[in-house]
Parts: sequence; C-alpha cells; structure tokens
Amino acid sequence: MLVNLEATIEITAYNWVPDIARGRVKDMRVRWALEEIALPYRTRLVAGAGGEKSPEHLADQPFGQVPVYNENGLTLFESGAILLHIGEKDERLLPRDPAERARATAWAFAALNSIEPFMQTLFFMGLIADGKDWQGEAKDLVRPFAVMRLAQLSVALGQKDWLEEHFTIGDLLMIDVLRAATPPELLAQHPNLAAYVERGTSRPAFKAALAAQLADFEKTAA
Amino acid sequence: MLVNLEATIEITAYNWVPDIARGRVKDMRVRWALEEIALPYRTRLVAGAGGEKSPEHLADQPFGQVPVYNENGLTLFESGAILLHIGEKDERLLPRDPAERARATAWAFAALNSIEPFMQTLFFMGLIADGKDWQGEAKDLVRPFAVMRLAQLSVALGQKDWLEEHFTIGDLLMIDVLRAATPPELLAQHPNLAAYVERGTSRPAFKAALAAQLADFEKTAA
Repeated sequence: MLVNLEATIEITAYNWVPDIARGRVKDMRVRWALEEIALPYRTRLVAGAGGEKSPEHLADQPFGQVPVYNENGLTLFESGAILLHIGEKDERLLPRDPAERARATAWAFAALNSIEPFMQTLFFMGLIADGKDWQGEAKDLVRPFAVMRLAQLSVALGQKDWLEEHFTIGDLLMIDVLRAATPPELLAQHPNLAAYVERGTSRPAFKAALAAQLADFEKTAA
Repeated sequence: MLVNLEATIEITAYNWVPDIARGRVKDMRVRWALEEIALPYRTRLVAGAGGEKSPEHLADQPFGQVPVYNENGLTLFESGAILLHIGEKDERLLPRDPAERARATAWAFAALNSIEPFMQTLFFMGLIADGKDWQGEAKDLVRPFAVMRLAQLSVALGQKDWLEEHFTIGDLLMIDVLRAATPPELLAQHPNLAAYVERGTSRPAFKAALAAQLADFEKTAA
C-alpha cells in the first residue's frame, strides 16, 4: 500500500459514503493507476455523500466531487484527466508511440462517455424512481441502450486480454466502469467482458487500491 | 470551409439525420477544431440515424457512431480523444505548458463526463418516455441534477471569457455540449453561460464547421 504521509502527490477521497458505494468511489481509479507504477500518494479526506462541501473543495473541484489530484502546485480534477496525467509518467499505463497512445486515450474517453453514462442512466432509474409504479417500465426502456453498448464492447474486445495490445489507462477506466457501475446480470451475458473485469481486478495494484480506499473509510469511523 | 478532397485527414459524418439533429452531430466538434487551426480535411459519409452500419464502420468505431478520424493510418474514435490528438498539433487549442495543458484536459473530460451525461439523461426522458403519463414526473426527478451541474459550472466560469485563461479544446467541447445537448431554458438561467456559448459559436471556425456539416447533408439529399 503506497499511502504515505510525506508523498508529493495528494488526492482527495470522501470521509464517508454508504456501504454500497465503498470500493466504488472514483478515487479508486487514481489509487489504482498510482499503485500500477508504484508512485506513493497521500489522501485528504473531504465531506462525502450528504456532507456539506467546503469552499476549498469546491474551488478545487467545481462539482464537489472526488478525486482532486495535487502535485507540486498542479491541481487537477476529472478522473480521466488525472489518469492521462499519471499515464504520461510511465509507459506501463500509456504507450509512448503516438498512435498507440491515441488509441489508449480513445478507450479512456469511451469508458467515460460511451459506456458509463448508459450504465448510470439505468442505475439512476433505480435510484430516483424508487417506489414509483412506473419504475419497471422506465428501466425496461433504458436497459436496451446499456445492453447494446455492452454487446458492442464485447465484440471490440473479442478474445484479447486488453482492448489494445497492452494494459493501458483505457483498460483501467473501462474495467472500473464495468465493475462499479454495470448491473452484474448484464455483464454476465458476455463471458469475455466478465473475464476482462476479473483479469483487471486480479491485478495486485487494483487490490492494493481497493484496500486503501476501504481503509480510509475505517479511519473516519475510528 | 476547409473540406478538401485531397486532404490527409479524413473524418466520418452521417449521410442523414433528422432535421433536429442537423448541426448537432458530434463530427461538429472535430470540424470546429480543425477550422480553428486551418487544417484541411475530407469527409466520408456513413449510414446515419436508422441506417444499417457497415462492417467497415463498426471496425473503426465500435459503437457505430461518428466521428472516426483517419490520418496517415491512425484510426481514432471518441470526439474527446480526437480533440486531444488535434490539440497536440497547435497551442491555440491546447497549451504547451504541462499544467495549463492538464487543466484544459480536465475541462474536456468535465464536458463529456460531468455535464453531457446529465443533459442526455434529461433529453432521454423526453425521448423514451414520450407519451407515457409518467414522463413529466420522470423529467421532474432528473432535471434537478442537470440544474445543479449547470449552476456549478456557472460558478466555475464566473465572469471569465473561457474556463481557463485562453480558449482551449476544453471550451470547445463544453460549448458544444451546452449548445447542442442542454435545454435552452436551463441555460438561460445563467447569463454567463449563455454569453459563453454565444462567444464560442460566434467564432468564425464554429460557423464554418456548422456550414460544412449542413452542406454534407444537402449533398446526400441532392
């Protein structure tokens, strides 16, 4: 575990979220990337779900979310942008070849703009329409779009281990979206996607990142 | 207008979409960026809304969408990734200073992951729940999330011309999301955001890009 109080890199994480969100908050992506290249970091805990956002936090992150990334005066938000920034430090996350690098970037955007929003809409219908008699109908109407995107992604992955030749931040983000935001029963319809998620979440860096996020919640509880 | 049959850069665009979508299809973003730096391109028209996607198109773009960007054998999808790639060619789109560059990238991701999905969910409720007696209730439940994100963005922009010191691909993407995917009555609640969109869409490069997208639809009709 690379959490180190004297590290140059600081990321924010929530001090509290409900049990169901633990291990799924988006600082996971940044922790995972840093663990992949053994770069130490420290965390600054900020008010989480339901808590009031401090002015300092809103100045760093306009939407009051996590993570914020700080490094030698550079303050960065949006997990995708943070991962590109970290990726540029190490070719194990982002290839040096311009064409390969551009393809990895395409998958990073695909995870966040072509897959995640469709999963979120479906999740959202579960959340906001809870208890409404039209909830089932609404979910039935939005589900086909999520199903279609997963089927297209399954074709694109095929029998490869990763979306391109090597593991990149594109895989890291895609696997995080698939594991944290996708209904398990939809994922299970595509054995290659399920195996892809298993392959990603079996990486020691993922496991270390997960343990570190969970440990920070315990710290708050203590 | 920079459309040129002998250009090295080729982008795909749809050959047909309904009237309401004309001028809003996502190749607009790429055309706009290329016009900003006077880089010529040609278009390849592919089956649009309701048309059957060709195997060639699906091989280039796993979700059957546009744009795809081709340049000397590099095939790239996702408008965000394409704009980063184009931005790296010219500091008028993406600053050379690493910290400024990272901030511009953060806004690009913010447009596509923190703003657009919330606008799309609202639009989606209009589309899929059309004619349902619960449509109004559903829209009332999702609208507050879109409203909140716009209010936060309005605070972040403040009285600045652009999100950071200079116009970047972050502004280009944000303005495109605000003008093409945001309900006008929500945008109108924030005069600074409305002026920001007006500022962006008044740029000659935006106007040229819009004319070029509309001209390609006319070509199909002819």
